[in-house]
Amino acid sequence: MTSPSPSTGPAEALKAAFHTHASGVAIITTVDAAGEPVGFTATSVTSLGATPPLLTFNVARGASSWSALSLHGYVAIHMLAADDVELARKLAGPKELRFTANDWELGPHGAPVFGSATAVIIGKIRQTVEVESNAVVIVDVLEGLLGAEKGGLLYHQRAFVTVGEILD
Amino acid sequence: MTSPSPSTGPAEALKAAFHTHASGVAIITTVDAAGEPVGFTATSVTSLGATPPLLTFNVARGASSWSALSLHGYVAIHMLAADDVELARKLAGPKELRFTANDWELGPHGAPVFGSATAVIIGKIRQTVEVESNAVVIVDVLEGLLGAEKGGLLYHQRAFVTVGEILD
Repeated sequence: MTSPSPSTGPAEALKAAFHTHASGVAIITTVDAAGEPVGFTATSVTSLGATPPLLTFNVARGASSWSALSLHGYVAIHMLAADDVELARKLAGPKELRFTANDWELGPHGAPVFGSATAVIIGKIRQTVEVESNAVVIVDVLEGLLGAEKGGLLYHQRAFVTVGEILD
Repeated sequence: MTSPSPSTGPAEALKAAFHTHASGVAIITTVDAAGEPVGFTATSVTSLGATPPLLTFNVARGASSWSALSLHGYVAIHMLAADDVELARKLAGPKELRFTANDWELGPHGAPVFGSATAVIIGKIRQTVEVESNAVVIVDVLEGLLGAEKGGLLYHQRAFVTVGEILD
């Protein structure tokens, strides 16, 4: 065994490890207390078992969407394709510009749905687990909306990237 | 808005959505009550904030590694590169064949470390959240081991794939 080495401290270890670790890109939407749409780009959406169908995502409790998530309870989780990269950038940009275009509408349970997503899950938040200044959000999957099948969008080494080649 | 449509039930929605959603591939190791190495391939490793450095992963409580994870408390989380695909397959295969080669050694806090990983995080389990037959595992990052910088390994549409092109 020649590598890995050398040892690093915890903050540097986390940063270095997730710099090399690719993630699928999703956008998560809900509505706030005034009924206005809120949402954000997330790289933490993960399945938590199929029976019953559950998923998780992680969010900073300082994020602008956190109070809306806690309040409304219903969310739309959009899996993005490579050609949705501008949508991913928009939902990671200034929050006042995220819902100004005519590319979304209210979907099941009042959650905003962007039409271009590859697949959308409508879910209900079952539990939030607060850990330091962040939270793990556990979601019951209620139903889905299927778009065109397209190659996924990834975040890797601080850039949006496409899916590459299949390894046999 | 022309798509997504049509609506699907919850189990089909989860399956379809995660079929299109790419995930980074990691392997997670620990030791069992007898001191023997155990580990598995995971696509659920996600950051949970940097201050303090935390991460999460999801695991089925029926998995062979679950009791060891609960007991030992220390884990090694390996981020895999595309050229680690055989390691990813091995740690997703028969458990009696996962640690038979000379490609690992015991690392910090007794967690088994595979030398070829791009980056390894040594962590301590802070909390497990049991949800139905699965669990969310919340890990404090203690230190890291850095390997060679290589392109990440992904799982997408039921295949191991490389990272593709950067989207400008």
